[in-house]
Amino acid sequence: MASPAVDYARQNQQRFLSELKELLRIPSISTMDEHKEDVRKAAEFVASDLRRIGMENVEVIETQGHPLICADWLHAAGQPTVLMYAHYDVQPPDPLDEWITPPFEPTERNSNVYARGAVDDKGQLWMEVKALEALMQGHGGKLPINVKILLEGEEEVGGEAIAEYLRKQKSKLKADFALVCDTELFAPDLPTLCVGLRGLVYTEIEAIGPKTDLHSGVYGGAAPNPLFALIEIISKLKDAKGRVLIPGFYSKVKAPTDAELKTWKKLPFNEEHYRKTEVGSAVLTGEPGYSVLYRTWARPTLEVHGMPGGFTAPGAKTVIPAKASAKVSMRLVPNQDPEEILKRFKNYVKKLTPKGIQTNIKVWSKGPACVVGTDNRYIKAATDALHEVFHKKTVFIRSGGSIPIVTDFQDVLKIPSVMMGFGLPDDNLHAPNEKFHIPNFYRGIESICLFFEKLGGK
Amino acid sequence: MASPAVDYARQNQQRFLSELKELLRIPSISTMDEHKEDVRKAAEFVASDLRRIGMENVEVIETQGHPLICADWLHAAGQPTVLMYAHYDVQPPDPLDEWITPPFEPTERNSNVYARGAVDDKGQLWMEVKALEALMQGHGGKLPINVKILLEGEEEVGGEAIAEYLRKQKSKLKADFALVCDTELFAPDLPTLCVGLRGLVYTEIEAIGPKTDLHSGVYGGAAPNPLFALIEIISKLKDAKGRVLIPGFYSKVKAPTDAELKTWKKLPFNEEHYRKTEVGSAVLTGEPGYSVLYRTWARPTLEVHGMPGGFTAPGAKTVIPAKASAKVSMRLVPNQDPEEILKRFKNYVKKLTPKGIQTNIKVWSKGPACVVGTDNRYIKAATDALHEVFHKKTVFIRSGGSIPIVTDFQDVLKIPSVMMGFGLPDDNLHAPNEKFHIPNFYRGIESICLFFEKLGGK
Repeated sequence: MASPAVDYARQNQQRFLSELKELLRIPSISTMDEHKEDVRKAAEFVASDLRRIGMENVEVIETQGHPLICADWLHAAGQPTVLMYAHYDVQPPDPLDEWITPPFEPTERNSNVYARGAVDDKGQLWMEVKALEALMQGHGGKLPINVKILLEGEEEVGGEAIAEYLRKQKSKLKADFALVCDTELFAPDLPTLCVGLRGLVYTEIEAIGPKTDLHSGVYGGAAPNPLFALIEIISKLKDAKGRVLIPGFYSKVKAPTDAELKTWKKLPFNEEHYRKTEVGSAVLTGEPGYSVLYRTWARPTLEVHGMPGGFTAPGAKTVIPAKASAKVSMRLVPNQDPEEILKRFKNYVKKLTPKGIQTNIKVWSKGPACVVGTDNRYIKAATDALHEVFHKKTVFIRSGGSIPIVTDFQDVLKIPSVMMGFGLPDDNLHAPNEKFHIPNFYRGIESICLFFEKLGGK
Repeated sequence: MASPAVDYARQNQQRFLSELKELLRIPSISTMDEHKEDVRKAAEFVASDLRRIGMENVEVIETQGHPLICADWLHAAGQPTVLMYAHYDVQPPDPLDEWITPPFEPTERNSNVYARGAVDDKGQLWMEVKALEALMQGHGGKLPINVKILLEGEEEVGGEAIAEYLRKQKSKLKADFALVCDTELFAPDLPTLCVGLRGLVYTEIEAIGPKTDLHSGVYGGAAPNPLFALIEIISKLKDAKGRVLIPGFYSKVKAPTDAELKTWKKLPFNEEHYRKTEVGSAVLTGEPGYSVLYRTWARPTLEVHGMPGGFTAPGAKTVIPAKASAKVSMRLVPNQDPEEILKRFKNYVKKLTPKGIQTNIKVWSKGPACVVGTDNRYIKAATDALHEVFHKKTVFIRSGGSIPIVTDFQDVLKIPSVMMGFGLPDDNLHAPNEKFHIPNFYRGIESICLFFEKLGGK
């Protein structure tokens, strides 16, 4: 089927990519205060292009944290309305010395563009914007369906701003479905829709011992060591096989249906290849009796991400630190309530805290898991569009990651989400040398064009 | 007894203190590469004053690491020869935000001088230099005994340079005894000689897991986490009561004699006061059945000092790091061989390393414990000198810290050490707000003057 939007997109690929690189050059790291202005700069960059391509009511909305971007185009009478979501903030780039080229100097190698945020999520956000531009240009300044846009700059910090805004602006944001571009293809060239996400509770356990840093020679054997206390505590949160030991942690876990498990078994997944090329470790870990996909998509987990405190520079310092902390997160699966899990976690950490040490728990973010339905016209149109681009049947997968907004779309706006992402499993998101495969950037744009054209009967 | 050296020292207190402050302003942090030039600057500062006061053969000696300083004055025919030791390097000052005044801007408050290195060990090094100046000036340009000086800039990193130099220059450094000023008074106004030190093995366990940092949502449940592996390993190195679990760790431990233990019981030590004012924690920790002094002076311990790796900045990053490490040290007591302990440690860590993780152990420093005899004329003259300054009987204590050079003096040069230190238990060495009580700086100078005068029959 001929698509004037796809034609336009193909003619403008080079420019679309150049613009994306401009966006990637802005270090919009939402978790670092010193990059607050860069996050704003990224928002202004995106808003400005939305205005240029003909979107209406484009706003950069102030929040307690980083700005939201809203826009719409609502002149497709009788047609459905999509709420398009993506995020323009990125993860910190450290460890910097492992990047082959600098994280904020986008570089092309082997048909990939390398940069922090390339795939997560600036590249996919730009797919959405460029699809709208192509649709506008291909259809004489009109879109085939009604469009609302809601973009955020706090996804990587589990920001509260979008959740609050959504609750306050239910009618403004009301739509028939959401399009979320922040996921990946299950395998190269395999069209994929994500229908389930894990939830997240991200905490920091702070441990306080002596009133000041102490010399470990003079005081070792008498003074409590907060770093060792954290080690004692965390070693009891999860066993060596990966089973979380917090009492009641698994009590409400909802398992996938047999039908879903059966489709997972048919996916082109080679555990040995995954171990070697994606994880790159000697063995894989995790709960015995569950497959890798089951463990990462539908089993809750607990991880430690960093332990600030004490002496961490190169060399030796014989210190018993006065305080230390540990960043500990839990991924949740359907029916686990983040509040309840957090309460159980807090109680257990309190119980495990040794004498002489005081622990406090800070919560950086929390959100439940989410599974979306597949029996609606939006999923149908999306799979048709993907078929046209990839010439293959779409697979339905889950992701072990978390996109809290999808739960909000479901619970607050009562709309289903189409999670259509074009990343690849080896795109190094959250890691050094993050990349986006450039052909997938173009396929993403074309898929969105065709998806909206189909829904609008074009 | 009238002492012209003490008279001179009293008349020049203010200048001596100003000079010390100048030395304290040089950030000679031996463990940090970026301060290499500052370490040298401190060495030159000290060498220059040694020349000025009349010491001979003053040399700043190049080593693989930081320079040594040598000097002598050998014209007291028939008198004994002392080898004077101290170190001019300091610990890193972090955490910086806990210093009331900046670590390298020496500031006086309540008769203390606050600065990194004030008591450990620049203040005590400067006591030695100023005692020599006062003796020279008080005795018409002569010293009452023969003096050799050996100062180092790597004490805080367990540097190898001095140990190597000592072995090569045995005859040059040969003396009757050593004077080491790097310890403390057991209590304010209580003259103290230290006769025992713990040894040290300081390591860094490096753990490697995935080939790159991974997203903990996408890979949590399948990828091994090196930080969690370190937690698992270290939690098994020591139990909650402080007992080290490395097989054979205690097998050669030599306990103090009953007589020594009896004298420790008579020391003015209030555990509750120590807990509150020195440690400042809710309770003290350590092996049951041993007193605090026993635990910190004569029992081996294991501590964790810092765990670099993963995400440690403020905020949340959902990363499974590719690698992480942990700085782990052990304090040793008499008869524990550092090489043997290190071997046992390495074997046990290897055994505890979970599948999917590779561990490597780096050794930052190692040295055995040391106990020195008290039945020699040097200790006798030292206690007499201290009595004249403090009007009290000297107590003999041990220290939980490590001064590897004292073992070398004993084993290589076959000479006893007089460990005469003037720090206080609350001087915050290795911690923020390190200080030196100014009256103790002056008492130190006077004690050394009287000590050498007595030995020289003046």
